[in-house]
Amino acid sequence: MCPGQLDHELWRGMEKQKHIIETQQFDLPRIERLFEQTRRVQRSLETGNRHEFGYSLKGRSMISLFYEPSTRTRISFERAAQLCGMNVCGTENAGEFSSAAKGETLEDSIRTLTGYYPDVIVLRHKETGAAQRAADTIDRYQLPVHVINGGDGTGQHPTQALLDLYTIWESRKERIENVHVVMGGDLAHGRTVHSLAYVLAKYSTVHFTFVAPTELQMKKEITDYLTRHGIRYTLETDPKTVLRDADVVYWTRLQKERLDPKLREDIERHGMYQIGQSEVDMMKPDALILHPLPRVGEISTEIDDDPRAQYFKQAQNGLYVRMALLLELLG
Amino acid sequence: MCPGQLDHELWRGMEKQKHIIETQQFDLPRIERLFEQTRRVQRSLETGNRHEFGYSLKGRSMISLFYEPSTRTRISFERAAQLCGMNVCGTENAGEFSSAAKGETLEDSIRTLTGYYPDVIVLRHKETGAAQRAADTIDRYQLPVHVINGGDGTGQHPTQALLDLYTIWESRKERIENVHVVMGGDLAHGRTVHSLAYVLAKYSTVHFTFVAPTELQMKKEITDYLTRHGIRYTLETDPKTVLRDADVVYWTRLQKERLDPKLREDIERHGMYQIGQSEVDMMKPDALILHPLPRVGEISTEIDDDPRAQYFKQAQNGLYVRMALLLELLG
Amino acid sequence: MCPGQLDHELWRGMEKQKHIIETQQFDLPRIERLFEQTRRVQRSLETGNRHEFGYSLKGRSMISLFYEPSTRTRISFERAAQLCGMNVCGTENAGEFSSAAKGETLEDSIRTLTGYYPDVIVLRHKETGAAQRAADTIDRYQLPVHVINGGDGTGQHPTQALLDLYTIWESRKERIENVHVVMGGDLAHGRTVHSLAYVLAKYSTVHFTFVAPTELQMKKEITDYLTRHGIRYTLETDPKTVLRDADVVYWTRLQKERLDPKLREDIERHGMYQIGQSEVDMMKPDALILHPLPRVGEISTEIDDDPRAQYFKQAQNGLYVRMALLLELLG
Repeated sequence: MCPGQLDHELWRGMEKQKHIIETQQFDLPRIERLFEQTRRVQRSLETGNRHEFGYSLKGRSMISLFYEPSTRTRISFERAAQLCGMNVCGTENAGEFSSAAKGETLEDSIRTLTGYYPDVIVLRHKETGAAQRAADTIDRYQLPVHVINGGDGTGQHPTQALLDLYTIWESRKERIENVHVVMGGDLAHGRTVHSLAYVLAKYSTVHFTFVAPTELQMKKEITDYLTRHGIRYTLETDPKTVLRDADVVYWTRLQKERLDPKLREDIERHGMYQIGQSEVDMMKPDALILHPLPRVGEISTEIDDDPRAQYFKQAQNGLYVRMALLLELLG
Repeated sequence: MCPGQLDHELWRGMEKQKHIIETQQFDLPRIERLFEQTRRVQRSLETGNRHEFGYSLKGRSMISLFYEPSTRTRISFERAAQLCGMNVCGTENAGEFSSAAKGETLEDSIRTLTGYYPDVIVLRHKETGAAQRAADTIDRYQLPVHVINGGDGTGQHPTQALLDLYTIWESRKERIENVHVVMGGDLAHGRTVHSLAYVLAKYSTVHFTFVAPTELQMKKEITDYLTRHGIRYTLETDPKTVLRDADVVYWTRLQKERLDPKLREDIERHGMYQIGQSEVDMMKPDALILHPLPRVGEISTEIDDDPRAQYFKQAQNGLYVRMALLLELLG
Repeated sequence: MCPGQLDHELWRGMEKQKHIIETQQFDLPRIERLFEQTRRVQRSLETGNRHEFGYSLKGRSMISLFYEPSTRTRISFERAAQLCGMNVCGTENAGEFSSAAKGETLEDSIRTLTGYYPDVIVLRHKETGAAQRAADTIDRYQLPVHVINGGDGTGQHPTQALLDLYTIWESRKERIENVHVVMGGDLAHGRTVHSLAYVLAKYSTVHFTFVAPTELQMKKEITDYLTRHGIRYTLETDPKTVLRDADVVYWTRLQKERLDPKLREDIERHGMYQIGQSEVDMMKPDALILHPLPRVGEISTEIDDDPRAQYFKQAQNGLYVRMALLLELLG
């Protein structure tokens, strides 16, 4: 196969879905194929071959429509598009700057923008369900445009979940079997932990420990889902007791202003829910420490050089996964 | 003629004007040629040939300089440039972010930016006359840069008027004859209705009905212009009485905060100046319903699928017209 | 040598430095080589050959990361990148929009962004030393990314100093010898005058007159530096007495709100520290009047057409110098 060509063989027989809205829409074969493509993209870029995919999507275009700011997600999507040869335009802050400020509905904005011949619209929006509404508008008029959900309210952020999953998949020799995932921090409000829990639940041998202050524990909606699908999980409140057995430690930020003052004081005084060298020292030698970033103190920079700390690699995997998704949708 | 090549024959003998400042500068032959080019662009893109013009303006560049936010206008210009192969850079909110905040004059900003070798500057500005001032600065120093007015204060928005006119021209078999145009809503403050009235007045058989609350009627400056040029018009206040005979219904948003409280109540209670199914049912079967968008309730979404509702097609025509203008100026 | 090819001969033996952080890092041979390349870029563009360098850095990419708005600096960098064939993406206002708002450190942001395969990050930041911190982060992890300081707090703005210096170099037949530079305005707070003084001090025959209200005089740190390096300078308060003998008049904005009310009144009433026709009439026929722009009244527009007024040319030289720097770093 020629470099720069998408391996169409790889995708044969696959049910492409037009839009990327939520993690549940991906079945295991699709994920497997996506990750194989992601790995090819990664190897190509890591070995300095920045041009291999540079013409794959030449002449195609992305509109990045961000109603909420998100430099990380936006720039990684735009770089993914550029590295596939696409044109990019868009807005950093659609909510404030655009006709949305004059009261235009999302549906009208989407229908107008699709008239400008984008191939993909990446949408970040404050409201849960916004990406689905955008997709419905496009499908109603049978427009040849793909929507990718770049995060909708407290809903989903599917490409984040895919990059998280890819990071686990890749570091465990491309297998997700008998993995013990410890998720910690604010599990009640974090959309990344929700999306990742849904997608990990597709692997029957995964089991979870959710460690969080009681009022910030994983939502019942998700633990019910796990129960229905026969996935084991445990709820804990003290990180110290659970890090030892983790294969993957997925840590998130505790928004302290949401906490009971007493608990807040404990956390601040004792560094509870903070991962530093002593926490890492407890972990298995091949554990994986992940974080969706940005972090603000809950993971100490002192562990950044530990090989188990993979959160920056994880962020970079976002580029690879997004390139693979664009190649899948448009290739 | 090869695909992707601008038909220079089409432009021969035409007096190109360097800048696009106001609708009055276009005479009928120029409009006709521009629309023929627009139609070629449209057909090319509609038939999936996104590459036909993709190299026409390769290596040329646009700076979009928006002192006021306008996602719709900015993105359609940027996509038009990209689809012609141009580079784009610019700012979404020059007023807040740039040296304008430090007190730099528009003239100094323009002179500086022209030093960076743009081919076109698209300018959106709060002040009426800003585009002309930018053009004067460029001409004074004989710089090879075109200014396109992307809307200046309560002044003009010529590419909006051209896309409106093109929508009428195209839907009426490329002829504008004996057209009865009903303009409704806030005619006093809407810069799009002003620009469109000026350009339609070039067609001697067009006649207008302006329907608006008395305090929001069409400005005397424009009705005087129509009288001088022998164009018939009528002023009305009740939409119900005028929709029946319209060939084109051009509707705009009523800014309710500008209205007398009594009138406002009538409008809110009775849905006056709102177009819904019952209003559309009155209209001719081949009437054209246009709106510059965004709309905020004055056209009901229930009529979106009626073939007479052409406002999204109209918005898309903006892309085609802007591409044709870029090809004319730079081709 | 083929057009469009960087003259590698020109750079042979040169110690490339990976990042552009401050003017002190440039020695005279490097400056000389950079300016020769700048001149080639300038000639190419001035003679209408906009394509000569259009493929030199094809496929390379710049991320412009502006925590403070600066349309001029950002657009000139982005145009420089485009004219070399590079891709560009970035953010206009990282401070407000990005994860910085959530408390992410600059180091974490840089490490994340470098994962997206930029070749260059142009950084504008409120804090002095930010560019060095970004460079340190990159070097610590041996990442193949160059940082260019686009202005850090009250620190440096090295590409501004280089474009200033180039303007002097080019207008004086590519020699900087026995030049009397008069710097005026707010010398205490202006980062451009500081950077330029440091770099001019490399030329042993340059001498300075610093003319400013006493409380806004050049910082002791810099006059001490000049003394240590044997560079002559004089401190003055009255512009009238010093313009006559200037080879270069480098003028900056006085921020009146920083001034003593009495002095402020004198300045406002008598137009002190303002350069108009009568001030220009005093100057040598081949003097050079420079200003980093934006200006807000301290240089009258009435002198804009005087051949000595070169501030817009100077701004344009910023494009050429930035292209030459990109070609040096990445070529």
